[in-house]
Amino acid sequence: MAEEDSVRSVEDEVSRVLEQAKELQDLAASLVSRISAEEQPLKQRALALQSSIRRIRSSIDSLLYQKILDPRAAEKLDEDLHRAACILSDGDASSYLPGKTQGRFLKMFLGPIDVRATRKEVQFKVKEEYNSYKDRIALLFLLFPATLLVLRYWLWNGCMPAFPVQLYQAWLLFLYTGLGMRENILRVNGSDIRSWWIYHHYCAMTMALVSLTWEIKRGPDCVQKQRGVELFLQWAMMQGVAMLLQNRYQRQRLYTRIALGKAQRMDVVWGESAGVKGQLWLLCPILFILQGFEAYVGFLLLRTAFVGVVSEWQVVFCGMLLVLMAVGNFANTVQTLLAKSRVKAKMRKSKTKQAAD
Amino acid sequence: MAEEDSVRSVEDEVSRVLEQAKELQDLAASLVSRISAEEQPLKQRALALQSSIRRIRSSIDSLLYQKILDPRAAEKLDEDLHRAACILSDGDASSYLPGKTQGRFLKMFLGPIDVRATRKEVQFKVKEEYNSYKDRIALLFLLFPATLLVLRYWLWNGCMPAFPVQLYQAWLLFLYTGLGMRENILRVNGSDIRSWWIYHHYCAMTMALVSLTWEIKRGPDCVQKQRGVELFLQWAMMQGVAMLLQNRYQRQRLYTRIALGKAQRMDVVWGESAGVKGQLWLLCPILFILQGFEAYVGFLLLRTAFVGVVSEWQVVFCGMLLVLMAVGNFANTVQTLLAKSRVKAKMRKSKTKQAAD
Repeated sequence: MAEEDSVRSVEDEVSRVLEQAKELQDLAASLVSRISAEEQPLKQRALALQSSIRRIRSSIDSLLYQKILDPRAAEKLDEDLHRAACILSDGDASSYLPGKTQGRFLKMFLGPIDVRATRKEVQFKVKEEYNSYKDRIALLFLLFPATLLVLRYWLWNGCMPAFPVQLYQAWLLFLYTGLGMRENILRVNGSDIRSWWIYHHYCAMTMALVSLTWEIKRGPDCVQKQRGVELFLQWAMMQGVAMLLQNRYQRQRLYTRIALGKAQRMDVVWGESAGVKGQLWLLCPILFILQGFEAYVGFLLLRTAFVGVVSEWQVVFCGMLLVLMAVGNFANTVQTLLAKSRVKAKMRKSKTKQAAD
Repeated sequence: MAEEDSVRSVEDEVSRVLEQAKELQDLAASLVSRISAEEQPLKQRALALQSSIRRIRSSIDSLLYQKILDPRAAEKLDEDLHRAACILSDGDASSYLPGKTQGRFLKMFLGPIDVRATRKEVQFKVKEEYNSYKDRIALLFLLFPATLLVLRYWLWNGCMPAFPVQLYQAWLLFLYTGLGMRENILRVNGSDIRSWWIYHHYCAMTMALVSLTWEIKRGPDCVQKQRGVELFLQWAMMQGVAMLLQNRYQRQRLYTRIALGKAQRMDVVWGESAGVKGQLWLLCPILFILQGFEAYVGFLLLRTAFVGVVSEWQVVFCGMLLVLMAVGNFANTVQTLLAKSRVKAKMRKSKTKQAAD
């Protein structure tokens, strides 16, 4: 009798659970459709607001150009407009704006999954984590190749064993892949990182991969044969220096801009796209020197290949890649500086004109 | 006068836009908090339902074990329970269940971004894309190393040039990294893929990376020196065969199970974790043969290293990795088959007992 009871009670429970599951599904489905109905008008308003902001910005520019608008007044209007744009893009409404399309790079590795965070806190967490990640790796970026070069001199008598170098190259490959992915993710989440800095990481990724296939020979002519590897390590060290400087500068700049309410918090500025004036004049020469060194290492690699010391295709390839990266970096830095000074000059010119009138 | 008008109208527009942005932010914030308040009770119900299903399932098992419940009745109850579980996990309510925690692998590459799709359609799209991705690569998996081996025989006289082999190894590295990521993503999205198959891909990734650092020499003793590479390519080809067979079998099985309403559609069964009975007895011997071949290639690699033909650490490492992978694959296949037959035996035994009583 007790057995029959327990059987019946299990049967009851099963049918109750099945009922509950169906009920919950209905509730969830209706909530989902209700939410999307309520979000629809907000989406439209967010879109309309975004295009209004763009329209007004261009009409301010044209009024300023025709000297109808006083530059100080324009600056004030620009500030208000920027505040509106920040509220839209940093606030809760931002999730109703269409996201940037996900690049091919992420799709290749992850498939069609959406990496856009709908909640703002998550987006900031991603950004924060990216910054601290860069800080962590920048130091390693400097120390790892430096250690190898020091050991080469003191311990290995100018002739490195293959394993530590290859370990380092594999680490570089992993690192640049991770950076490329994180930057693509930040971009999807509304950061306005310049495309070039992402391409730059793709190039560095390719170089790390190619360098893994380099033969690192030990033998009588080892010192000469390892000239390519030595140059590669020197370039990598310089990258570490550049990274440390840029991180420091960009963080400070970003925090300043956030404090001024002038930046979207998802801004990531790899490289030197904008600047706190004083520091920029310190950073820029250093960056140009580093870019020059990058090109120089590239040329040295090409020379070692062409005078026949090391005849592997990897050396030629890495040399060309380095020159390409140096040219790209230089062009992008100059472009940003020019754009900046154009804006400044425009402002200054219309100010002095107005004063003269 | 017209100028003043246009200035005033721009000023009006700016302040209006700023107002609108603030208003939209308030609306969005209130909608967000309203949604989370409405989702809260559904989350609790989903959790309660999930634990009820687990509890009832174990009480059915114990009733069956005590022979209080007739096996046919138990099967019927199990089916209903499974239907409830499917409604919960495949329906709209599934987004209210807590997701599986994201593994370290994804975090390392992507940072703290959440790759869980809240909408069911997206989850299915991810799953579908993963299946078609596997189909696409399985064929390349077979053709790429086969081509290299054929060319080695017909064109290169037993001595492969380094570049095509390294290109293939880089492709393998990219592929296994992508597979590892996609599988982690599927897991976060509710697929019950066995951990081993993901670890298996990590091993394969490591092997591709290590093989990139292999020196592929051309020279008088090239044929002998390239024995390691040859074995590696043969193993890779076998992987292609295994993949094609498994894809075919798993798809069919998955579709059958979906048709029967018995599977969660996010199930991915890499390897041979479950089976459509008839085909399983065809697939299993083939898989065991492939696993045997994997271990054999591993041993051959170790032998070439220890008899001193190729003395690089990469050969020893890859050899050990292959043996490890073969053992792991074998253990997992046997484990799954045993678990399956235990369930079947339990069912059968209680059925015959009942009949005898």
